[in-house]
Amino acid sequence: MPPSATDGRESDSSRLPVPADRAIGIDVGGTKLLGVVVDTAEPSTPIAVVRRSTPVGTEALVESLVALVAELDADTSAPVGIGLPGLVDHDDRFRYGPNLPAVDDVDLGDLLGSRVGRPVVVDNDATCATAAEFRFGAGVGHSDGVLLTIGTGIGAGLFVDGTVRRGANGFAGEPGHMLVDRNGPACPCGRRGCWERFASGSGLGRLGRDAALAGRLSAAVDLAGDAEAVRGEHVVAAARDGDRDAGAVLDEFAWWLAAGIGNLVDVLDPSIVVLGGGVMDASDVLLDRIAEAVPAQVMGSDHRPAVTIAVALAGEHAGAVGAALVASESV
Amino acid sequence: MPPSATDGRESDSSRLPVPADRAIGIDVGGTKLLGVVVDTAEPSTPIAVVRRSTPVGTEALVESLVALVAELDADTSAPVGIGLPGLVDHDDRFRYGPNLPAVDDVDLGDLLGSRVGRPVVVDNDATCATAAEFRFGAGVGHSDGVLLTIGTGIGAGLFVDGTVRRGANGFAGEPGHMLVDRNGPACPCGRRGCWERFASGSGLGRLGRDAALAGRLSAAVDLAGDAEAVRGEHVVAAARDGDRDAGAVLDEFAWWLAAGIGNLVDVLDPSIVVLGGGVMDASDVLLDRIAEAVPAQVMGSDHRPAVTIAVALAGEHAGAVGAALVASESV
Repeated sequence: MPPSATDGRESDSSRLPVPADRAIGIDVGGTKLLGVVVDTAEPSTPIAVVRRSTPVGTEALVESLVALVAELDADTSAPVGIGLPGLVDHDDRFRYGPNLPAVDDVDLGDLLGSRVGRPVVVDNDATCATAAEFRFGAGVGHSDGVLLTIGTGIGAGLFVDGTVRRGANGFAGEPGHMLVDRNGPACPCGRRGCWERFASGSGLGRLGRDAALAGRLSAAVDLAGDAEAVRGEHVVAAARDGDRDAGAVLDEFAWWLAAGIGNLVDVLDPSIVVLGGGVMDASDVLLDRIAEAVPAQVMGSDHRPAVTIAVALAGEHAGAVGAALVASESV
Repeated sequence: MPPSATDGRESDSSRLPVPADRAIGIDVGGTKLLGVVVDTAEPSTPIAVVRRSTPVGTEALVESLVALVAELDADTSAPVGIGLPGLVDHDDRFRYGPNLPAVDDVDLGDLLGSRVGRPVVVDNDATCATAAEFRFGAGVGHSDGVLLTIGTGIGAGLFVDGTVRRGANGFAGEPGHMLVDRNGPACPCGRRGCWERFASGSGLGRLGRDAALAGRLSAAVDLAGDAEAVRGEHVVAAARDGDRDAGAVLDEFAWWLAAGIGNLVDVLDPSIVVLGGGVMDASDVLLDRIAEAVPAQVMGSDHRPAVTIAVALAGEHAGAVGAALVASESV
């Protein structure tokens, strides 16, 4: 059955038989599953790509992943890497992620491994993307860097002294929940003033609505219908049309992004920060603003080389390709 | 000439001849120089300790260091490690540190090496302390940890996957300048709302004065003379006497310390955070408060092991002993 005959997903590429030097990677997002097959000797361009929507609940997720693995590679025993948005421990157990609310404390590696009869490795999605970007993407040539995925929330991966690092429990790289404003808005994590309340896609929407409700941003309000409906995409579209109010909201958003990047540079001293995730589809109106705002947010910036701010090259495949890389390196 | 005959310093120990398996470490603070000689096979207890005051300016600092090295070890060629408060690059150049304002962009390794005729290694002071604490102090047995020195400002060292890490330029570990409050007080670094405005010794003093000027904290005001003169030590002394207002200020201080520790745990996922520096002389009234405040500041804390909060064991010698360790490992 060709992939195009199956409901609920599209396919970028026809299915191919995959020999043993292949690996499968699946990026589990809050709304979609993105699966790839890669040649481990040449992983930058996937051999096959399949998308499905993310079902709700652990059992449905496992069924979808089993079906996706079979569809991507029914014939070999290529290892499988799964990237998940949240805390994944060193034993392939998914502990917690606000964007997968019905899936908590699940030993996904074991559950899935017993179903597909091949090695399954589970890791944080941004950590997987970091493995890809520093192997063949924007991070090549850097020994110390940070990757940020700017989407609904903010994910991160750490590349330190030439290696992806995961911390004591596997949970490193959750800067979205750094406190940056004691009196800031409430966060779904239970605290207030977390960085991702300002510097994620949701943060951009909130900054836009605040401006619209204050009577500014009429171009974005026209696009959205009314002030309460303004989202980040409306702000971006209005800014692309040259609207000055929308540009001012992007300046504020870039300031907040730079504030958290400054925190990470102060702590980790990376030579590059790689930015991926859906929000960076607007890199044409965001990247320069962010890069210009960062130096003022870094301690002693007059006395150190500027940190490079770059857009992820692997694009939307980075998490899935990275998961495949992590799996191939674990077997 | 015995150490006690020299003006401007005291000595904990008489000078000893040091064979080649020794190393010298000097911790350069904003107000004092602390020099040690260690046996590299048994570095935890220094063989000799000498203190002097820190002179102002690069030239005077070099002269003091040359004299201190000669005094600690005139007879051998034991390597020398120097720990400095601020940004030190991988080429032993001191770039910038707000607490050594008259010493900027100095190639201290070369300057000093040519004067003392032996290997000289220069590193960040908290990074040196980290080398010591994770070798034989509170961090033993942990592969991922953070050391914080809570003094006038906040310094840090990172221990990641079993090794001290310094970042791309050598500047890793400056969390004192993380933004934690957009509308917070101005910082000597030129920005506002940096963590060390709240969570350092100066931060404790400021929280105390704010409380005193608001009419609370009379016990600490009595100790200080007047509200404007309240410093951290008065708050600590009043809290030790059971004063409730002073305890409330320490609660607020611990909240701020925990907020930044939470940021670091979110980013790095250490299994331990080791606290040193002058403020931790008050660990009897601070440690429990900090340890109790941390879990609420960590993302997903219900789904992960608690991070250990511990006091540094090497105490005031940690930076100097660590500098000696770093020097002995570089030759």
